[in-house]
Amino acid sequence: MDLIIKNGSLVDSVGVYRANLAINKGKIEAIYSNPDRFSAEKTIDAEGKYIFPGVVDSHVHFQLQDLGKEISTDSFASGTQAAAFGGCTTIIDFADQTRGASPLKGFLERQKVANSQVAIDYGLHVSKTDLEFLDEIIALINEGVSSFKFFTTYSWRNLDLHDSELIKFFSVIRKNRALAMGHLENDSIVQQGIQQMIDEGKLDPIHHAESRPHIAEEEAIQKALLFVQKTKAKLHIAHITTKEGSDLLRTAKQQDMRVTGETCPHYLLLNEKAYMAEDGYLNLMSPPLRYAKDQQALVNRIKDGTIDLIVTDHCEFSRKSKGNGNLPFYKVLNGIPGIETSLPLMYDLLINKYKMDITKLITLMSTNPAKLFGLYPQKGSLQVNTDADLVIFDPSIEKTIRPEILHHNIDWNPYSGMKVKGWPIATILRGQILCENGEFIGPKKAGKFLARQLTYQ
Amino acid sequence: MDLIIKNGSLVDSVGVYRANLAINKGKIEAIYSNPDRFSAEKTIDAEGKYIFPGVVDSHVHFQLQDLGKEISTDSFASGTQAAAFGGCTTIIDFADQTRGASPLKGFLERQKVANSQVAIDYGLHVSKTDLEFLDEIIALINEGVSSFKFFTTYSWRNLDLHDSELIKFFSVIRKNRALAMGHLENDSIVQQGIQQMIDEGKLDPIHHAESRPHIAEEEAIQKALLFVQKTKAKLHIAHITTKEGSDLLRTAKQQDMRVTGETCPHYLLLNEKAYMAEDGYLNLMSPPLRYAKDQQALVNRIKDGTIDLIVTDHCEFSRKSKGNGNLPFYKVLNGIPGIETSLPLMYDLLINKYKMDITKLITLMSTNPAKLFGLYPQKGSLQVNTDADLVIFDPSIEKTIRPEILHHNIDWNPYSGMKVKGWPIATILRGQILCENGEFIGPKKAGKFLARQLTYQ
Amino acid sequence: MDLIIKNGSLVDSVGVYRANLAINKGKIEAIYSNPDRFSAEKTIDAEGKYIFPGVVDSHVHFQLQDLGKEISTDSFASGTQAAAFGGCTTIIDFADQTRGASPLKGFLERQKVANSQVAIDYGLHVSKTDLEFLDEIIALINEGVSSFKFFTTYSWRNLDLHDSELIKFFSVIRKNRALAMGHLENDSIVQQGIQQMIDEGKLDPIHHAESRPHIAEEEAIQKALLFVQKTKAKLHIAHITTKEGSDLLRTAKQQDMRVTGETCPHYLLLNEKAYMAEDGYLNLMSPPLRYAKDQQALVNRIKDGTIDLIVTDHCEFSRKSKGNGNLPFYKVLNGIPGIETSLPLMYDLLINKYKMDITKLITLMSTNPAKLFGLYPQKGSLQVNTDADLVIFDPSIEKTIRPEILHHNIDWNPYSGMKVKGWPIATILRGQILCENGEFIGPKKAGKFLARQLTYQ
Amino acid sequence: MDLIIKNGSLVDSVGVYRANLAINKGKIEAIYSNPDRFSAEKTIDAEGKYIFPGVVDSHVHFQLQDLGKEISTDSFASGTQAAAFGGCTTIIDFADQTRGASPLKGFLERQKVANSQVAIDYGLHVSKTDLEFLDEIIALINEGVSSFKFFTTYSWRNLDLHDSELIKFFSVIRKNRALAMGHLENDSIVQQGIQQMIDEGKLDPIHHAESRPHIAEEEAIQKALLFVQKTKAKLHIAHITTKEGSDLLRTAKQQDMRVTGETCPHYLLLNEKAYMAEDGYLNLMSPPLRYAKDQQALVNRIKDGTIDLIVTDHCEFSRKSKGNGNLPFYKVLNGIPGIETSLPLMYDLLINKYKMDITKLITLMSTNPAKLFGLYPQKGSLQVNTDADLVIFDPSIEKTIRPEILHHNIDWNPYSGMKVKGWPIATILRGQILCENGEFIGPKKAGKFLARQLTYQ
Repeated sequence: MDLIIKNGSLVDSVGVYRANLAINKGKIEAIYSNPDRFSAEKTIDAEGKYIFPGVVDSHVHFQLQDLGKEISTDSFASGTQAAAFGGCTTIIDFADQTRGASPLKGFLERQKVANSQVAIDYGLHVSKTDLEFLDEIIALINEGVSSFKFFTTYSWRNLDLHDSELIKFFSVIRKNRALAMGHLENDSIVQQGIQQMIDEGKLDPIHHAESRPHIAEEEAIQKALLFVQKTKAKLHIAHITTKEGSDLLRTAKQQDMRVTGETCPHYLLLNEKAYMAEDGYLNLMSPPLRYAKDQQALVNRIKDGTIDLIVTDHCEFSRKSKGNGNLPFYKVLNGIPGIETSLPLMYDLLINKYKMDITKLITLMSTNPAKLFGLYPQKGSLQVNTDADLVIFDPSIEKTIRPEILHHNIDWNPYSGMKVKGWPIATILRGQILCENGEFIGPKKAGKFLARQLTYQ
Repeated sequence: MDLIIKNGSLVDSVGVYRANLAINKGKIEAIYSNPDRFSAEKTIDAEGKYIFPGVVDSHVHFQLQDLGKEISTDSFASGTQAAAFGGCTTIIDFADQTRGASPLKGFLERQKVANSQVAIDYGLHVSKTDLEFLDEIIALINEGVSSFKFFTTYSWRNLDLHDSELIKFFSVIRKNRALAMGHLENDSIVQQGIQQMIDEGKLDPIHHAESRPHIAEEEAIQKALLFVQKTKAKLHIAHITTKEGSDLLRTAKQQDMRVTGETCPHYLLLNEKAYMAEDGYLNLMSPPLRYAKDQQALVNRIKDGTIDLIVTDHCEFSRKSKGNGNLPFYKVLNGIPGIETSLPLMYDLLINKYKMDITKLITLMSTNPAKLFGLYPQKGSLQVNTDADLVIFDPSIEKTIRPEILHHNIDWNPYSGMKVKGWPIATILRGQILCENGEFIGPKKAGKFLARQLTYQ
Repeated sequence: MDLIIKNGSLVDSVGVYRANLAINKGKIEAIYSNPDRFSAEKTIDAEGKYIFPGVVDSHVHFQLQDLGKEISTDSFASGTQAAAFGGCTTIIDFADQTRGASPLKGFLERQKVANSQVAIDYGLHVSKTDLEFLDEIIALINEGVSSFKFFTTYSWRNLDLHDSELIKFFSVIRKNRALAMGHLENDSIVQQGIQQMIDEGKLDPIHHAESRPHIAEEEAIQKALLFVQKTKAKLHIAHITTKEGSDLLRTAKQQDMRVTGETCPHYLLLNEKAYMAEDGYLNLMSPPLRYAKDQQALVNRIKDGTIDLIVTDHCEFSRKSKGNGNLPFYKVLNGIPGIETSLPLMYDLLINKYKMDITKLITLMSTNPAKLFGLYPQKGSLQVNTDADLVIFDPSIEKTIRPEILHHNIDWNPYSGMKVKGWPIATILRGQILCENGEFIGPKKAGKFLARQLTYQ
Repeated sequence: MDLIIKNGSLVDSVGVYRANLAINKGKIEAIYSNPDRFSAEKTIDAEGKYIFPGVVDSHVHFQLQDLGKEISTDSFASGTQAAAFGGCTTIIDFADQTRGASPLKGFLERQKVANSQVAIDYGLHVSKTDLEFLDEIIALINEGVSSFKFFTTYSWRNLDLHDSELIKFFSVIRKNRALAMGHLENDSIVQQGIQQMIDEGKLDPIHHAESRPHIAEEEAIQKALLFVQKTKAKLHIAHITTKEGSDLLRTAKQQDMRVTGETCPHYLLLNEKAYMAEDGYLNLMSPPLRYAKDQQALVNRIKDGTIDLIVTDHCEFSRKSKGNGNLPFYKVLNGIPGIETSLPLMYDLLINKYKMDITKLITLMSTNPAKLFGLYPQKGSLQVNTDADLVIFDPSIEKTIRPEILHHNIDWNPYSGMKVKGWPIATILRGQILCENGEFIGPKKAGKFLARQLTYQ
C-alpha cells in the first residue's frame, strides 16, 4: 500500500465509524477493521481524529479576470494551495463567456491557464452571458462542463439575461440535461439602489447593503422559480443570503421542483454590522451581508435540509485592490477570501455551536456538491475504489483565526479574531499528502481538470 | 315627482325585491311599497322587469389618441351614447401621461375634450408612464382622480415602469391612499415573442396570442403582488385573462393582501379560435384571447369571488383602421367594442347559463366598480338620496347580436351572431331617461365629470 | 302610515345613508328623502341616531329544561323582553331531542311553550342527539326548522354523536339541504380533563378552563371539517373560542367549503382571568373562556371575514342556581346572560375600539344570522316590504353596565362595571314600538314563530 | 478471514460500487478493491450479483397469540427461516400487552418464547393497550424496547386508546424519547361499517374493504398528527394504505413534524379486486386492500420520500384457520404472508418496473427501518465493523411466485402467479451463511434478541 491511515473515525454523509483506510495508486484500496492488517510506506495514526472526504468547494473565483484591469489576488496556484491547507481537494471555478465571444474558446483558454498551476483537482462552470452561442453547450458538456451560470443582474457589465433570454436558456439547459446556476438579484432594483445611494451621497460600505435590498434577491428567485417550473430545467441558486430567498427555496422543494441552493460561511457568520466595523470596505461582496434574522433563518434552513451546499464564493483582493478604504462603495471590488477557513468555521458553527450531526457537515461541504455537479462518487465519498481525497481533522485543536496563520496572499481576513475548535491537520489528494501539520509537503501541481457528468434525465 | 318606476323588481348587490321608485331632481326620492302612493309627470310600469343600478364600466377607451395617427372610432360622444343604450351610466376613461409631460396638464386637457361631449357621467384614471411627475399625484387626487394606471410592458412605446420604478410608484400610491391599476404583462417576454413571430414569418392573427404567452401575464402579476406586499399599496389588476393569473389573485386575497382584479366579457365569451375565424384580425387586443380552460377558470374565479369586476376595455376601431386584414398581427391596432353589449351578454352567460345569483351581476358590473374607484354610493347602489342612475332590464327579450342593432360607429362586432335572452329597455341618468325602447330620447350631453374619492386608509 | 322615523342614519350590511322610514301594517312601506313627505300617528325624530335592522340572535337558551331539576332563570317571556331592551327582535332557541323520543313531538311541545310567551319573533333549531329519528327531519323542515344542532361531547348526558353517527347525520343533512350546527369539543379529552381535575382536587372555577383545553375544540373542529368535506354538508360551527379553531375555519373557507362560524361577546370581552375574579363561578360556561391571545385572534378573524356571526349563547342562572360559589366547578350549571348587552358591547368593541365599519356590526349580528338560518330578507334587512324590525341606536349615550340597569331576572352580570358608549333607545317589532327610552311600552306577547327556509341547493 | 465475497456490486442507501468484502467473527472486516488481497475458508464469487445489507422487516407477527384460540401458522422458528430465504436478517415482532397485565412481564415471556427458536436476529415492539403500566416504559427501554405500538381501533377487543389516553401516551413517549407506532383507523367508523355490512347481509370478502372505508384511516391519521404536533412525540404510522393518508404524512413532514410512515407490498401490488377473486377470503387483512388510485399514490409517495419504510406486516394463517371460505368476512382471521417474497417483489416493482434507483430499495427495506428503530449501523449498513448481515441478490433470475417454491407453512400465497426478475440467492447472518441456492445450510437457531437504542433527543 502507498498510505495507511489507521485508527481514525471515518465520517461520510451517512455515518461515523471507526475503521482503517488503505490507499493505493491514488484510490481507497480498503476500509478495514484490524489496524495491523496492512503495512505501507507511510502510515498515519489518526487516533482521536476524524477522516472526512475532501471538501468540494463548487463556487470559487481564482485570478478573476473579467473586472478589467484588476485581477483577484489569488492565482490558481496560490488559491489551490490555500484551499489544500483548508481541507479542500476539489474546487469548481468559472470560465466566463465574454459577450459576443465563443464560450467554448473561453473555456479552453481558462482550462489552459488553470492546468499549469493547480495543486488540487478542479472543474469549471461556464458562465452564459448571452445566448448567441447556446449551441456550444453540447460541445461544452462533452468537455466535462455540466453546469452553466447565469446572472439576472450586472446589466451595466452586460452580464444579465433578460427574462425572455432566461426562459430560452432554461429550455436549452433542460433539453441537454445540464444544470443552471443562478446569481439571482433584480437588476432594476440594484441599479436604482446604487444610483439612489450616489444621489444621496451615501457612499460608505453600509450603503452597499442598502443599495441591494432583500427584495432584489427575493424577486429574482421568485421569478427564476416560475420559469424553472415552466421549463422543467434544473436550477441551483447561488449564494442565498435572505430569509425570504431561503423560504422560497423551501416552498419550491415542497412542490417537488428540481431546485437546490447554497449559502456561504460569511452569510452565516457575519452580518451588516461588519460594514460598519473598521475596514468595513474589505467585507464588500455581492449579494451583501444581511441581518441577524437572516443568519438565523439560514441556519434553520440548513437544519431542515432546504439549503443543500455550503460553498465559499472565494474571491480575494488585497487592501490596495479594494482601494484602501478611499473609494465609494460602488467602486470597491467585490469579494472576500474564505477557502482556507470554511471547514473549521463551519465545523465550529454547525457542530460545536448548533450541535448538528457531523454527517451534515460532510453532506453540505463535500457529498452534496460532488453529487450536484457530477463528481460523485469519485469525489465526496469514502467508498472503496474512489479517489483518496481525504482530510484528517482534529476536533480538539483550538485556534484563533488570523491572516498570519493562513496561506493566502493578503494581510487581512474577514473572520480575524474568531476562535474555533477543530482544525484540518492533513489533506490528501488522490493518495498524496499535500499538507500535514501546517506544512505543504506534497507536489504543488498535482491537480487536474475534472470532466463532470450530467446528473439527471 | 319627476319620474316613477312602479312594479319592478329592484336588484342591487344584496338582494332582489319588488318595490316602486320615485325620482326627483335626479335622485332616488323614495323606495316604497304601494304603487299608488305617488304620482309623477312620467311613470314607467316595470311589471316583469328588473331595475338595476346603472352599469359602471371602469375600463373604457374613447377617442384614444396616443397611438400616433389613428384615433379610435368612438368619440366621447358616440361612445357614451352607445354605452347608454347598453345600460351603462358611468364610464371611467384614461388620461394618458405623455412621457416627459405634466400628467395634470394632460388630465385637464382630456377632461376638456370629454366634458363637451359626454352623454353619461364619467371619470378619468391617469396613466403614469414615468415618475418625473409623481408629486402631481396630490393635485390630481384633489381634482378627483383616485386611481393611477401603470404598465409593465410596451417599452417600445415608452409606457412601462421598470421594477425599481414600480416599487417607488407603489410607495407613492400607498402614501397618498390612491389605487394602482396595472396592465401586467412581462415586457421582455412579449417583446421577444413578437420578434420571434416576425423572425419565423408567423404573422397571422393567431400568432398574436402566441407572441404574448400565458407566462407573460403570470410573471408580471406575480411580481406586482410581491411589490405590493412590501409596499402595502392597493393594487387593481386590469383585464386578467389566464387561469394562472386568476389563481395568483386568489392566493393573494387569501393572504389578506389589498388587491382586486377584473376580467372582460371577451375573455369569458371568446377564445383563441376567434383569431382563426374569418376576419380574425378584428379580434386583436392585448392581452390576447386565451384557451377554453382559461375561460372556465375565469368563470370559477367569478363564482368564488376572486374576480371583483367585469369591465369592457372597450376600444373600437373600424375595419379600415385595423388594416382590412392586410397587416401582420403586430401592426394591427388593438381593441374591440364591448360597451353596448356587456350587460346583456353577461346576464345571459352568468345568470341564464351559469345560474349565478343575479345580485352577483350587479356586484361585478356596478357596485364593485363604484366602490373600488370611489363613486359609491352615488353610483352603484339603489339607495334613497343617491343618483337615480338606472337600467330597466327585460329578462324575456331575445336578441341576436348584430352590428345593425347596435349604435356604435362600426360595421362589425366580435359577438355577432350570438343569441342572448335579456336586454336593457331603458336607461336613466340622474332621473333623465336617456334611452327607451331602442330610441335615444334624452339629452345627448347630460354627462358630467365625476370627482372620485380615495377608498382606504 | 302607522309610524314614521325621520332624519335617522340607516345602517344595513352594505352602507350608511340618511333617509326617512315610513312603516305601515308591520312592514317598511317606504324609504324616502323628504322628511315631510308623509305623516303618521306616531313620528320619531332620529336625528343623530342610527337605524339598524333588529338584532337576530340565533343562539339563545331560554327556560332550558334538559338539565334535570333546575330551569334557566329566563323564561321565554322574561328573556324575550330583555332581548327587546337590547335591540334584539328575533331569537332562535332550541328544541332538544330527548334520546329515544321523537324530535318532532319535542319541537311541537317546545313551540307551544314559547308561543304563549314571546315578546319578539323566534325560531327553533332542533338538537339531534340520536339518529333514531332521522326521517323526521323532513317533517321538521316542513314545520320551518332548517337547522339541526349536534354535539360531539356530553357523552355523560347522552348528547354526543359518535364519529360514524356524525357522518350519517351530515349525509342526511346534506340530502335535505339543511344546516348542521355543531357544538364541537372532543368528548374524550373533556371527560378525562374533568376527571383529572377531580383526581387532583382542582375544583375552582379556573380549573373548568383547564379541564376543557384548546385542543378539545381544535380536534373536534378538525374532525367535523373532514367529515363535512366528504359529505358536502353545510356546517355552522357554534361558539368558536380559540385561535386554533378560528384558523381551521379560515383554511376551510379558503378551500371553498360550505362552512360558517360564530363567536360570542364573552369570548371577545372576557378571558380566563374572569374565573379567578370574585364570584368567578358565575362565569362558567362551555366552551370556557380562553386566553388574551385567543381574544385577539377572534377579533382578527372577525376583521377578515372568517367569523360570520356574533351571537350570545344566552343562558342565564341565578347565584343560587349556580350554587352560590359552594360547588366544585363541574357541578356548576353552565351559562351566562348576554342578550340585553350584546349590541352595545359589540358596538363599543368593534366600532369604537377597533374602528371597524359599522356595516360590519350589522352584518355579524343581523344580516348574516338572518341569511344563514333562512330568515332573510324578512329579517336582517332594511328593504321596503320587509318586516319593520328596527333598533334606534344613539351612539352618544354613555353607560356603565350594571345588573340594575338591565331587565333580566338576576342580580349579577358578567360585564358589570364595563363602560360603553352607544345604546339602543328604541326597539320596534313589525312596526310596533316595544321599548322606548328604557320603558317597555309595547305588547308583551307580540312575538310569533318563524318558519325558516332552506338556504342552499 | 471466515468468509469472502468477491466481485460483487455493493449497494447501500447511498450508492452502488464494485468491491470485495471480507468477513471475520461475524463482522465486516474489510471492504477492498483487489479481490486477491485476502483468502478465507469460504469464498463466494458474486460477479454479476448485488450485495445488499440484510432486509430489516420491522413489522412482523409470528405465532400471534392474542386472537384467542387460533395461533398464526408461523412459529418464530418457521417464520424466521422463511424470512432468511427471503433475504431478511432482522425482524421486529410484537409483545402485546394484555389489558390489566404488566407489559414488562409480557415482554419477558414473549422474549423467552422467541429466543429458543429464531433463525435470524429479532427485536420486539411492545403494544400498549392500556395506560395502567406507563411507568414500565422505562424498564422496557432498558430492556431494549425503543418503540411502542398503539391502536385507535379494535375497541371490541379492548385494544384502542381513547383520545385522551392517546395524548397522555404521546406525552410519556416524548418524555422518554421513545417512538410511538400507530395502527390508525377510526374505531367508530370501522365498528359501524362492520355492523352495517352485517345488517345488510353483505358478508363477502369485498365487504371487508367496504366496512373500513378510506376515511377511517384518514381521520385517525389526521387526529394522531394533531396530537403529535402538540406533544412533540415521534410517531411512526404503520401500514398506510390510502392516498389520503399518505398525503397527510407528506404535509406533516413539510411542517417539520417528527413523523414517519410505512406501507406494505400488498398495498402496492394488490387492490380490492383481490377480494373478488377466487379464495378472496385469504387476502383479508386490516387495513384492507384499496383502489388502483391508492396504489399509484403510494408509489408516488415512495418516490418523493414521504413513505419511509416498506415492511410486510407478515401474519400467516392456513386456509383452515381462515375458515376455508365458509365464514362471513368479519369472522375471518386477518393477515397474509409476505416475509419471504417482499425483497424480490419490491425489487421487481420499484427497480424493474418503476426504474427507481436501487439505493432506494435498500433505504426503504433495510437502512431506514434499522435507523428508525434503533439498530443502525449494526443493521442496515455495509460499514466495516458492523454485523455481516448480507443478501446476495441475482438480478437476472426469473421466477414465478408459487407456494411450492417458498418455505412457509401454508399452501397458498397472495402473489401466486406473479412473475419477478431478481431473486436472493444467499443470506448471511453475522457472517454465517444461512441460505444458499435455495437450501438452508446454516444453523437454525443462530438468531438473538436485539436491544434497540432510542433515536432522538
